Amino acid sequence: MTQELVTQVNGAPRALPADHVENGFFQQHILSVRQFDRDKLQYIHRVANEMRSLVRRFGKANLLDGKILANLFYEPSTRTSSSFQAAMLRLGGRTISINEVHYSSVTKGESLPDTVRTLESYCDLTVLRHPQKGASALAAQYARKPLINAGDGAGEHPTQALLDIYTIEDDLGRLDGLRVAMMGDLRYGRTVHSLTRLLCLYDTQFTFVSPEALRLPAEIREELEASGHRYAEQRELEDTIGEIDVLYVTRVQKERFEDPEQYEQLKDVYVVDPELMSHAKQDMIVMHPLPRVYELSMEVDDDPRAAYFRQMENGMYIRMALLAAVLGKA
Amino acid sequence: MTQELVTQVNGAPRALPADHVENGFFQQHILSVRQFDRDKLQYIHRVANEMRSLVRRFGKANLLDGKILANLFYEPSTRTSSSFQAAMLRLGGRTISINEVHYSSVTKGESLPDTVRTLESYCDLTVLRHPQKGASALAAQYARKPLINAGDGAGEHPTQALLDIYTIEDDLGRLDGLRVAMMGDLRYGRTVHSLTRLLCLYDTQFTFVSPEALRLPAEIREELEASGHRYAEQRELEDTIGEIDVLYVTRVQKERFEDPEQYEQLKDVYVVDPELMSHAKQDMIVMHPLPRVYELSMEVDDDPRAAYFRQMENGMYIRMALLAAVLGKA
Amino acid sequence: MTQELVTQVNGAPRALPADHVENGFFQQHILSVRQFDRDKLQYIHRVANEMRSLVRRFGKANLLDGKILANLFYEPSTRTSSSFQAAMLRLGGRTISINEVHYSSVTKGESLPDTVRTLESYCDLTVLRHPQKGASALAAQYARKPLINAGDGAGEHPTQALLDIYTIEDDLGRLDGLRVAMMGDLRYGRTVHSLTRLLCLYDTQFTFVSPEALRLPAEIREELEASGHRYAEQRELEDTIGEIDVLYVTRVQKERFEDPEQYEQLKDVYVVDPELMSHAKQDMIVMHPLPRVYELSMEVDDDPRAAYFRQMENGMYIRMALLAAVLGKA
Repeated sequence: MTQELVTQVNGAPRALPADHVENGFFQQHILSVRQFDRDKLQYIHRVANEMRSLVRRFGKANLLDGKILANLFYEPSTRTSSSFQAAMLRLGGRTISINEVHYSSVTKGESLPDTVRTLESYCDLTVLRHPQKGASALAAQYARKPLINAGDGAGEHPTQALLDIYTIEDDLGRLDGLRVAMMGDLRYGRTVHSLTRLLCLYDTQFTFVSPEALRLPAEIREELEASGHRYAEQRELEDTIGEIDVLYVTRVQKERFEDPEQYEQLKDVYVVDPELMSHAKQDMIVMHPLPRVYELSMEVDDDPRAAYFRQMENGMYIRMALLAAVLGKA
Repeated sequence: MTQELVTQVNGAPRALPADHVENGFFQQHILSVRQFDRDKLQYIHRVANEMRSLVRRFGKANLLDGKILANLFYEPSTRTSSSFQAAMLRLGGRTISINEVHYSSVTKGESLPDTVRTLESYCDLTVLRHPQKGASALAAQYARKPLINAGDGAGEHPTQALLDIYTIEDDLGRLDGLRVAMMGDLRYGRTVHSLTRLLCLYDTQFTFVSPEALRLPAEIREELEASGHRYAEQRELEDTIGEIDVLYVTRVQKERFEDPEQYEQLKDVYVVDPELMSHAKQDMIVMHPLPRVYELSMEVDDDPRAAYFRQMENGMYIRMALLAAVLGKA
Repeated sequence: MTQELVTQVNGAPRALPADHVENGFFQQHILSVRQFDRDKLQYIHRVANEMRSLVRRFGKANLLDGKILANLFYEPSTRTSSSFQAAMLRLGGRTISINEVHYSSVTKGESLPDTVRTLESYCDLTVLRHPQKGASALAAQYARKPLINAGDGAGEHPTQALLDIYTIEDDLGRLDGLRVAMMGDLRYGRTVHSLTRLLCLYDTQFTFVSPEALRLPAEIREELEASGHRYAEQRELEDTIGEIDVLYVTRVQKERFEDPEQYEQLKDVYVVDPELMSHAKQDMIVMHPLPRVYELSMEVDDDPRAAYFRQMENGMYIRMALLAAVLGKA
């Protein structure tokens, strides 16, 4: 089911203005980063830039007045849920949040397709967060209106990867020719997987830093090789820090380790603190999808190279751009 | 307490424009289908039609700009809650949702009347869902602003019955002279009870199809007889299917049966699938209040006679009509 | 940390219109009643009066169009949460509610400062309710945008005290020269503490009525003495009732007593009912922060001296005034 990732929304095809046809987002589902190429990314980045200007100047843009977003979250995510809500509200639209799965007709045994079709009766598009891989693609098969994947378990979380790559371009001014290090849990971190796939569209030099047990999956490594990218795998960041442009940090979760001692041993290796930053380039950035625990010291927060709070704000602009694009108002 | 179903909202009577007095909804509570006669139903259907046109053309109608709805749900109902929220938002109003009873001053022991009066301090009307029969009527005794019953346990769920009868008229073009079959759990399904009462205002021929244990309650059968309506009771639908105009299906819940074997035996009898539909008239409709489990095959979804997703959408228009009517903006 | 109660929000100081500088609220956090003096209270009361006029005439005031409020509640409070939401909506703004702490990245171990900074990326100000004393001051240290304390455990709940004192002035026409009795749990009731502190700015005569075990804390009594105020402490209200202008009642909670018998004995002493009211002055008022249990008889509700539902409505106007003031639109 996940093969057919760009699904034309059911219903009669309509005659569209040329720019809508061109950007290719109108009435489409957003399910995977694989839907994006360099042109589409440039388009979304350009719209996100405009959204930022509008929000900073006016607080909002009235492009989606009269539109309603169903924000359907089958598992908790304050950050993603709030970001989509704010994006919709700042576009002049309204939101209906269905956060509590224990508190819904789902508890009466309703299927995901029926729940999505119900909400579509009232709303103009759906944002779906679900703990199971493939849930978004399944829901999209039944959806008559655009559906955006806000994370489906071990599957994808495309808007996170989009805000990540947007932040890199925005902060560093380019996407080609960068040396990007990903550090921490590279095995289970879908954030890392999705961003890596997007960066494969550009001339990127990758360094993957993780314990052996949390190595980047073979599937992704093969994709890197197939796309002709060079990459290095390391156990520690150490002397490489001085050469990288982007350091992308993720949490190393205790529950991933069978041996607690191994966790205690390893966790200190993957911490970003002022000492590490003193060896980094002046024009590099540190990124993190948040929430963080210990792996990112609060002492780094005031360093201008700390990009993680900018990432969050950019998430709202990227989501504004996507919402506007799929509803034909970008 | 449920006798006095149409309660004039407390406070000084005001001079109203003639049409508001005429439609009889302005500043009234909506507690029961018994408040409705043929004229009132026609009025609400007419307003719902207008709402549908406005939503389809503009996405919204700015009739309730500046108004706030308190959406007070003491038990889960994603569908009803979302529908009321969308109705209010599409009217240009705003909503405040109080969904989590475990998460409210109710846990501190506050009474329903105090909670309703609190919310009225901030809002312009209240939608109340409560697991106890009579809760809406009790709350309405204390309410100074309009209150709409969104389901009170074994009591009523008037807006569900209103959207059902609206869908029948909208799909079939008339309400008199129809043969309506209700199938499934007719004993506990308040949806069936309320719709039956509304259909008694019209020249309807009823067929009730259920296991003996889930027969229509005596009280409703007596009402049918008192209003001079003919009805048949059957254990199975079988050959009748070819004669009916409306087949209204409800869930048969396992927990209603003392004997699990009896449930397993019966459940297959009350399933709507393509085989059954092949014997039905071409211009009939299949309705269901949703959520469904097994009693309504997903294979029927694409049949144009499947009216259940239209029901849901119509629910929003009916609720828009009621919200506008009680606030004097219909 | 609570010493520095008025915290200038981080970021470059801007040139402000004279009236914004004058009122002293623009871009400030609202953390404690200690931030308020007579001038500031008069300013907020004047703005609240205007808000009430606007709401009664138009339902809303479009002062905060394009602004978003993050309503961050780490513990339940339907009343306070709904009141802030309604205040923001009636100002033309939008709200994002984060009510369910169990349902958030907080469960992933995220710190309060990170959660607040996340929400600030999307929103224009934050309202914070937290069970721990000092939580608001901690959060404010990291906040780059205004933060309003909506109750921090045994700490403060400044907007409650502000709506209380506003109600007294609104109902009685003055704040100087009043005799105010506080009755019930005066030890743990932060409402009583905060209101007492605000009333110390005026010529107030205090009477504190409570069981010995629930006496006003020494700290507050010392403040009263330091500010030159006279006060009486009594076990029962009795004959004093005929002399007081404001009777402020709070709940006596069973769980505060080690000895259940003592609770049963005492609880009847602190009940307001028609009998008690028959001895009270005609132009006095009875106040209660709500929710109530038994200590305030529903038979008193229709007495015009019962001010507690007016308190709730006033809470919305006070919060509108504060939201507008800190965003520079009052």
